[in-house]
Amino acid sequence: MVARSKTKEKILHTALGLLNNEGDTQITSVDIAAVMSISPGNLYYHYKGKDVIIAELFADFETEIRQVLSAPVTKPLALEDNWIYLYIIFEEIYDFRFFYLNLTSLLERIPELRPKFKRLLSLMQTAFELLLSGLEASEHLYFRTDEKHILSERLTQHFTYWLAYASLRGIGAKNPKTMIHEGVYTALSQITPHWGANSEPYAELLRDFLDEQVG
Amino acid sequence: MVARSKTKEKILHTALGLLNNEGDTQITSVDIAAVMSISPGNLYYHYKGKDVIIAELFADFETEIRQVLSAPVTKPLALEDNWIYLYIIFEEIYDFRFFYLNLTSLLERIPELRPKFKRLLSLMQTAFELLLSGLEASEHLYFRTDEKHILSERLTQHFTYWLAYASLRGIGAKNPKTMIHEGVYTALSQITPHWGANSEPYAELLRDFLDEQVG
Repeated sequence: MVARSKTKEKILHTALGLLNNEGDTQITSVDIAAVMSISPGNLYYHYKGKDVIIAELFADFETEIRQVLSAPVTKPLALEDNWIYLYIIFEEIYDFRFFYLNLTSLLERIPELRPKFKRLLSLMQTAFELLLSGLEASEHLYFRTDEKHILSERLTQHFTYWLAYASLRGIGAKNPKTMIHEGVYTALSQITPHWGANSEPYAELLRDFLDEQVG
Repeated sequence: MVARSKTKEKILHTALGLLNNEGDTQITSVDIAAVMSISPGNLYYHYKGKDVIIAELFADFETEIRQVLSAPVTKPLALEDNWIYLYIIFEEIYDFRFFYLNLTSLLERIPELRPKFKRLLSLMQTAFELLLSGLEASEHLYFRTDEKHILSERLTQHFTYWLAYASLRGIGAKNPKTMIHEGVYTALSQITPHWGANSEPYAELLRDFLDEQVG
């Protein structure tokens, strides 16, 4: 990450909180300045408008999620780490939720983000395919023909739009933890039908893990 | 559907074409009037702005998709009709694609559509659950515990965001038929892992159907 002044850090932190809680359309750069008790001119000195701030926030998000997604690319995950891995991805996305909730309009308004976001989707799909390949190699999962590839695409689509869908369906409206949990559970429900017959102990492990998250 | 003047019908038809081809943010009511070679004032006499037109288009879409979705609610589908049914739903959505591609911002800008769209999502989820129940009752599909319900939610999410995802991933960029086909195929890839051992003839039937659509 780029070295930044303390003021710049504070602007980004404030903007992210406001955008996540109020939504992109509700927040202007004047609002961000007001919350920080600085003048709009002072804010403008640091960042030339809201979309410049959003592009900078995206760069931070990109750095973090690339790190997470690269984990199974670098080396295969231990079996019990797979489920935690899915949680971590969702938590990253949740921390940047204003972006995912307004994906189409933000990618249209800030076109430089579009190719970057598309590359993230490719990386995510690759990460999921590697995760599934690892579980296939250890004979926990079984796939026919192109099922593995399609499943990795479906998981990528799921992670990209889950927050928007959950918000429309009112899932986890009162509790973000429930929303993330349901998102992971829905992701896992696509993987479990591919489990082999000898996967029962891992199904057990998964149930325990899920109970723990909800409890 | 409400009885409308010929001019109103022509406005709606023109607007839908422009919105689908250029996107919501690119089109104003002045553009619609220009394409029709009428004055903006004349257009305004019929509809008080672009969002009133969009709300009216939504009402038409709602009537049509409700009719389609209600089919399995009224009576179970014949086995071979299930796949065609998924195509028909996607084609309806594709005909109204500008809306699905800008879902979040349109539901925010025209708040009266939000509860209506949410009810459509409920109906879609119910339709899919009934479709799956039919195939379970005839012993083509097998589900454990809550798998059937989760799958119906996942299919609803898939149908809602497929166009947006495919557009980001460049799937079917040159051929809408390919995009719809891939969408149906991806939906089916979630159903097939639940097939029972004796479903091979139907897998055959499905492969034939898919080949036909692509060919």
